[in-house]
Amino acid sequence: MSGGAMRRALAAGLAALLAGLPALAQPPAPAAPPAAAPLPGGPLAIERQGSFFLGGRDVASDALSTLPAYAASGTITVDQVYVRYQVPAGGTGRPLVLVHGCCLTGKTWETTPDGRMGWDEYFLRRGHPVYVLDQAWRGRSAASPVGINRVRSGRAPTDELPTVFSAGHEPAWAIFRFGKEYPQVFPGMLFPLEAQAEFWKQMVPDWLNSLPTPNPTVPALSELAQRLDGAVLVSHSQSGIYPFQTAALNRAGIAGIVSIEPGACPSAKADMAPYRDLPILVLWGDYVDQSSRWALRLKGCRDFAAAAHAAGGKVENAVLSELGIKGNSHMLMQDRNSLEVADWLEAWLTRAVGPRP
Amino acid sequence: MSGGAMRRALAAGLAALLAGLPALAQPPAPAAPPAAAPLPGGPLAIERQGSFFLGGRDVASDALSTLPAYAASGTITVDQVYVRYQVPAGGTGRPLVLVHGCCLTGKTWETTPDGRMGWDEYFLRRGHPVYVLDQAWRGRSAASPVGINRVRSGRAPTDELPTVFSAGHEPAWAIFRFGKEYPQVFPGMLFPLEAQAEFWKQMVPDWLNSLPTPNPTVPALSELAQRLDGAVLVSHSQSGIYPFQTAALNRAGIAGIVSIEPGACPSAKADMAPYRDLPILVLWGDYVDQSSRWALRLKGCRDFAAAAHAAGGKVENAVLSELGIKGNSHMLMQDRNSLEVADWLEAWLTRAVGPRP
Repeated sequence: MSGGAMRRALAAGLAALLAGLPALAQPPAPAAPPAAAPLPGGPLAIERQGSFFLGGRDVASDALSTLPAYAASGTITVDQVYVRYQVPAGGTGRPLVLVHGCCLTGKTWETTPDGRMGWDEYFLRRGHPVYVLDQAWRGRSAASPVGINRVRSGRAPTDELPTVFSAGHEPAWAIFRFGKEYPQVFPGMLFPLEAQAEFWKQMVPDWLNSLPTPNPTVPALSELAQRLDGAVLVSHSQSGIYPFQTAALNRAGIAGIVSIEPGACPSAKADMAPYRDLPILVLWGDYVDQSSRWALRLKGCRDFAAAAHAAGGKVENAVLSELGIKGNSHMLMQDRNSLEVADWLEAWLTRAVGPRP
Repeated sequence: MSGGAMRRALAAGLAALLAGLPALAQPPAPAAPPAAAPLPGGPLAIERQGSFFLGGRDVASDALSTLPAYAASGTITVDQVYVRYQVPAGGTGRPLVLVHGCCLTGKTWETTPDGRMGWDEYFLRRGHPVYVLDQAWRGRSAASPVGINRVRSGRAPTDELPTVFSAGHEPAWAIFRFGKEYPQVFPGMLFPLEAQAEFWKQMVPDWLNSLPTPNPTVPALSELAQRLDGAVLVSHSQSGIYPFQTAALNRAGIAGIVSIEPGACPSAKADMAPYRDLPILVLWGDYVDQSSRWALRLKGCRDFAAAAHAAGGKVENAVLSELGIKGNSHMLMQDRNSLEVADWLEAWLTRAVGPRP
């Protein structure tokens, strides 16, 4: 048994002894970040950039259209995932794959609603190749009109219409933790509400509930991780579970997981083998304890972290407000201090994941 | 009367005299392009990049969702147009606004299906700021689920379902002029058919027929042109008419129009005032005469050019196959010779539009 394996076995044994004391079984709180180096300014030097699709499945249908000008019959391709990437000239950071949450697209990671630099450019300037995707059936990743047109043409009953919803500004307000409920605002909350109209424009209809589980985005993430041969999968909210599902599908190519305020972590009763020896960060903003929805999810992720820790895993739950970074909403990559949060995350990536080999 | 105005008046008079002879009334054929300078290689130097939305309209509804977990009532924002932009460091080219066609998104202009450089990067390397958009209700520009959910919840009859269609691979084949009909291929045709599966993934459902005329994309283009204070609007296929509609709405900020294989040009009977003294190119590939659909559209654009010419306008129809560039499909920005076509277009931009003032 190597020294590392022995230490892990001892740690696992100790964790198992402490399993009845979940507060103690938590992994140590993440250290405060070192002061960040200034972000390199000036023109961006991009080695290469472009876009492509992952996955995709052909579907033959006779309900593609109800218009005389467009044929009803033919084949379309769905389930593919659109990816736009940029690779910086120089830099040693691991490739980051940025996955947006519910009712949103890859726009989440680009210019903020109030016009500041998005995380896509921030991490590029820090030397990371950055891959931004649109989940399957959203944004530039095609949905299908077949379920609509079968009903419209009288060939299926209305209850076979697809499940597709949009989040309204008012109900989304509490979910995004701008305040307890619309239009209240948490004291000190840092989302740029003066630009909220620009944020609402980011929201698109969500077909998630018409799709199988795991979402086709998950095997696409696995394909991308393998192609990149060592990527950090960064998810948010509704997609929070996807990197975990991807690791459970296949660990190949996954160098780390950052799950930002996930809708769910894996169950504490799940098989922890997929997460062993994988740097995993679950990142939270502020006001979590003031939202029963999010407090419950944080508790679930703490339970997962404890279970992973007991099994030799290293899942860290970092609650920014407990680390001295206050005021973050659920959309922390767009909050006024988004680059300060990015600095913190960059320090975590440097410490826990390290550079490209 | 200035010398230029007198020349224009004489030209208009001559054109009017020749109106019974439309072949003669055509403007002179575009000159063959000069040999293009090699495209600058190496890392891209980007002064700034980002994304934003244009336009948008709030809609209140009680049919946003049929799921218990997401509220049915609230406000959503639709009709906005997503734009991603990159401004090169250095360069003197006019800003280009790239508008995709039917059933597609801004992906049209990015990496080709067979993995070569897209026109977004080509024109950036030639010194143009490049703005790539997703038309309203497509891609990252939100559609609305209200029309679906009103029917699904029994509050509207099925014939009120939105009109939304997808183009199937097989019927799209002839429209894109890969061949006369699926799966025939025109001799010498240059679309990279070996990568067609990647092209089909670019296609998304099209809500065009559920939208008002002009499409909300048109006022968005006007807003963008004014913001850029001198942009060339580059459209394709279904969006081919949009720059003309934009100019008719407001000429402010429009430095030129490039309409690639438009679904329609303005009518020859339309008011030509919006197009006076505006550099306008209507660009066509090969095999147009072998497609009744496209031959008719080219004829309509020739009629428009003659009418514009007679009124002092300068609309050029350039048919690449008549200029010695053979083999182009309707997707000429993705054909194997896409950068040769781009060189030709860059030469036209230099000659007809010129640099930023």
